[in-house]
Order: sequence, then C-alpha cells, then structure tokens
Amino acid sequence: MKILRPNFEKRDGVIPVIVQDVNSGVVLMLAYTNEACFLETVETGDAVYFSTSRNERWKKGETSGNIQKVRGMLIDCDGDSLIYKVEQKGSGACHTGAMSCFFRTIEGNAGYVGGKINITEKDKLPVINMPVVKVGWPYVDQSSI
Amino acid sequence: MKILRPNFEKRDGVIPVIVQDVNSGVVLMLAYTNEACFLETVETGDAVYFSTSRNERWKKGETSGNIQKVRGMLIDCDGDSLIYKVEQKGSGACHTGAMSCFFRTIEGNAGYVGGKINITEKDKLPVINMPVVKVGWPYVDQSSI
Repeated sequence: MKILRPNFEKRDGVIPVIVQDVNSGVVLMLAYTNEACFLETVETGDAVYFSTSRNERWKKGETSGNIQKVRGMLIDCDGDSLIYKVEQKGSGACHTGAMSCFFRTIEGNAGYVGGKINITEKDKLPVINMPVVKVGWPYVDQSSI
Repeated sequence: MKILRPNFEKRDGVIPVIVQDVNSGVVLMLAYTNEACFLETVETGDAVYFSTSRNERWKKGETSGNIQKVRGMLIDCDGDSLIYKVEQKGSGACHTGAMSCFFRTIEGNAGYVGGKINITEKDKLPVINMPVVKVGWPYVDQSSI
C-alpha cells in the first residue's frame, strides 16, 4: 500500500492530529504524533499518539479501554497535520468521561458532553474578563458540534 | 463578557486551532494562535491566526478575501487547543482552491474538495511504501468528511 508521507520535519518531528468520530463528524480531541506512532497506527489500525507532556508513545485507551479504531485518515495541503476518522470505543475520548474533550464553549457553557462527566479541580480553567465585543456571542448550536 | 483562558504557556505561547464549518461540521484547516491573535478574534469576530512559518499575525483572507467569521469557539479539557466554528467566505479555506485543506486521504485519493482545485508541484507530497497492513483501507466515506 502506498500512502502520502506527512511532513514531520516541518514541526520538529511531531505534528497535530485532529481526531474525528467517523460517523457523527464530532471532533473528539486534538492529539500529536511522530513518524513511529503514525506508522504503528497505519499498520495496526489502533490510534497510537505521541504524548507531548510525557514525551513518549501513547496508545490511546491502553489503560482505560477507550481505544480508537482508525477507519480513515486525511492529510492537509502542506502535509503537516492529519485527521483520523475513528470509531471511539468505551465511554469516550476524554479523561473527564465526556465523549469529546471539547465539551466546553469558550464562554464556559456545556458543549457536546455525551457520557457521565466528572470535572475535577485540575480541569477548571482560568477566566478572562473581556470588554464588550462586536460579535454576537454565544452562537454555537450545540446540536451541530 | 467572561471567557475561559486558553493555556498558551503550555505550548510556548502558540496553540493549535481546529477550524470547522459551523453548518456542515467539515474540518476546514488546522491553524495556530497566540494570545494576542486569539483576543483579536474574540473582539472582532474575524479569524486571526498566528503564522508559525512567517512567525507573525495572520488575518485569514486579508489578501484572498476568504475570511472566516467566527460563530463560536470550543476549548478542550486541558485548555491547550481550540475549535473555531466559522462561516467560510469566498472560495474556501485552502490556498489550492479546495473548500478544506484536508482534501486528500492518506492514500492520496481526493477527499472533500468542493471548489475549483489547483494543485501545483509544491503541493505534492512524498510517498511511503507500506508493507501489508492489518486494517481495511481505504475506508472513509467521502460524504461524511
């Protein structure tokens, strides 16, 4: 099988991966990969990422059971980012129990949750007080996330 | 207006932004932002990114006219990546003319194109010859991208 080669060099060996549910199109998470983890994913069909915090190979769901079966990949125009289309197994992609890691709008409202969510103190984010803005926030239709 | 503050520090001041069509859910591109460009985007409603290649502020569509009106933002569990839900103006998000920068599957087949596409020599990517793999490629249903 021939596949296109991502340009890992452009980003010092580690490029971002947008992880999208193959059926719903919901974006589940943003992860990173290097060449070895990318090739392992292509070969096995299980999503294997590179953890930038631990600086090591990270097979998604290896401990939690929430593995991701990769059903397709897209690559962007300049080859330095990927989309994995996955079947998410288990309770979801997020460590909080949410189906998607993007479960909050920037205003702090609940977005796409799906699943029993458990947000601890370390999952809270600081707040910025913005001046009056020109756009009509909030806008997002949660059903379309 | 109060908004959650992304953790720019975790990624040396520059974090990835997944840009998604607010209506279709199609992922249009992967961009980056820093704090100043993020705040400008919130204040004006027009997508302003940080170009990691030119190392400077980049207002999307400033020269091409293909601006993006941001209609909502999501932030991930640990605050170091964002989704912008946008209305894409003009011909599309990609410099090739495609609606989405992710117009190719990893096998090199056409994915979601939408628009008159013009791929030049510099848009071509190198190829890897893979051994036989365990998964059933290609899989992606192009209609669901």
